[in-house]
Amino acid sequence: MRSHTEKLRVRWVDTDASGRIHYTAAFRYFETAEWELMRQAGFPLSDHRKISGLPRVNVSATFYAPLYVDEQIAVKVWVERIGTTSITFAGEIYREEKRCVSGAITAVFVDHRDHPQPIPDAIRQALSGDENRFGS
Amino acid sequence: MRSHTEKLRVRWVDTDASGRIHYTAAFRYFETAEWELMRQAGFPLSDHRKISGLPRVNVSATFYAPLYVDEQIAVKVWVERIGTTSITFAGEIYREEKRCVSGAITAVFVDHRDHPQPIPDAIRQALSGDENRFGS
Amino acid sequence: MRSHTEKLRVRWVDTDASGRIHYTAAFRYFETAEWELMRQAGFPLSDHRKISGLPRVNVSATFYAPLYVDEQIAVKVWVERIGTTSITFAGEIYREEKRCVSGAITAVFVDHRDHPQPIPDAIRQALSGDENRFGS
Amino acid sequence: MRSHTEKLRVRWVDTDASGRIHYTAAFRYFETAEWELMRQAGFPLSDHRKISGLPRVNVSATFYAPLYVDEQIAVKVWVERIGTTSITFAGEIYREEKRCVSGAITAVFVDHRDHPQPIPDAIRQALSGDENRFGS
Repeated sequence: MRSHTEKLRVRWVDTDASGRIHYTAAFRYFETAEWELMRQAGFPLSDHRKISGLPRVNVSATFYAPLYVDEQIAVKVWVERIGTTSITFAGEIYREEKRCVSGAITAVFVDHRDHPQPIPDAIRQALSGDENRFGS
Repeated sequence: MRSHTEKLRVRWVDTDASGRIHYTAAFRYFETAEWELMRQAGFPLSDHRKISGLPRVNVSATFYAPLYVDEQIAVKVWVERIGTTSITFAGEIYREEKRCVSGAITAVFVDHRDHPQPIPDAIRQALSGDENRFGS
Repeated sequence: MRSHTEKLRVRWVDTDASGRIHYTAAFRYFETAEWELMRQAGFPLSDHRKISGLPRVNVSATFYAPLYVDEQIAVKVWVERIGTTSITFAGEIYREEKRCVSGAITAVFVDHRDHPQPIPDAIRQALSGDENRFGS
Repeated sequence: MRSHTEKLRVRWVDTDASGRIHYTAAFRYFETAEWELMRQAGFPLSDHRKISGLPRVNVSATFYAPLYVDEQIAVKVWVERIGTTSITFAGEIYREEKRCVSGAITAVFVDHRDHPQPIPDAIRQALSGDENRFGS
């Protein structure tokens, strides 16, 4: 299944008064990587959004170590499972060799009235490919 | 001109690693108060957004004192000026008697193609009223 | 176990270009309700943060229906489980009678060096109480 | 005076239900570029934060054109003025040749009790340099 690793830097605005990132920042990082994965698969989500939506129905994350401002992180996401109308992405956030966060996000293809739609074959095939690319 | 004061509490997610709020939180507080002002004027922005937009063209804020998590604040906004196609809101954020932030936000009425539109007379009149209401 | 329901309104800044809330907003709503629950239990987290932290180690949410700007929602949270060093909060977000989101958040008590600490008995007892209070 | 241009992409989470970015995203973009400018000047703000703070006292922005999800933008910031205790950064956000946002941010050097401090000579000199570097 297709994967992508996005190199990011923890931003000041992602932190909270604990000195660490607010945990919701991890979901924003996964989302950034997911968009790059989809772009590289040939399906930029900015195009997709014009015809339908991809709302999240299930999300989860586990935190193993805190992340601090300005740290360089590698956000890896991959396609974990493609269902009839939904895709599950899984992800991990690394600081050097240390895995700091893991997560999973399931999104469902919907039309403009929020009704689930079968995932088009072209997307299914593109996401099933095993090509890895590493973005900047 | 119409005004509104919204009582809010500084949330954990609004803070950054300095221990204070990230300054952009102040703009979110002003926006919350602006929505209540418009609702009380009889023009809930959730209705308005269906027919057109109200993008910001000019925003500014001055910070006199830091705000910390869980502090109770009073966010006062008022209509400062109504132009042909734009409205300027001004605001102040108080913690007890201390003014911590002041700001001004100018938004322009646009149609769906982002072209400026004259502000409807009904909105102009409703916002020119001098009634103050204090919300929760 | 202690619970709390917080009445909130979906803010403009919580939405994304789909017209719905960005899903991370739901976690912010749960956090707001958690802080009120802790305050009413006699342990305001703003005090707690001065002596130690409460980082999240596990979070999840399921989305049943979209939320739109300006909707009034009831965010219920309750203490699901108190472990040796961790607390699990569960929550649900309702728009009128409709459950739109459910979630669970596990946080661990840590000292200033991020080492897990036993939850103090006073907190344990206060959170085990079955008093419900409904806030504004 | 020193300047820096940061290439960014508008993220999904930066948008609101208007389909455009929420205007506060522009301030986050400026902040990202400011951190890179300071890093390249030899004063990474992650180090600086350990000894003192740099809270904003005055911020403003003007919006000339909307920004949409996934657009590639160039965020230019430069040192506009160095006062006794404060620095003013100015910035512009471009999508291709189109200037979409301009802004100015004044931050003040403070010690741990939030008292303004003279800007150290080393920082003053480094920021007065006229070297431009273009980041990724």
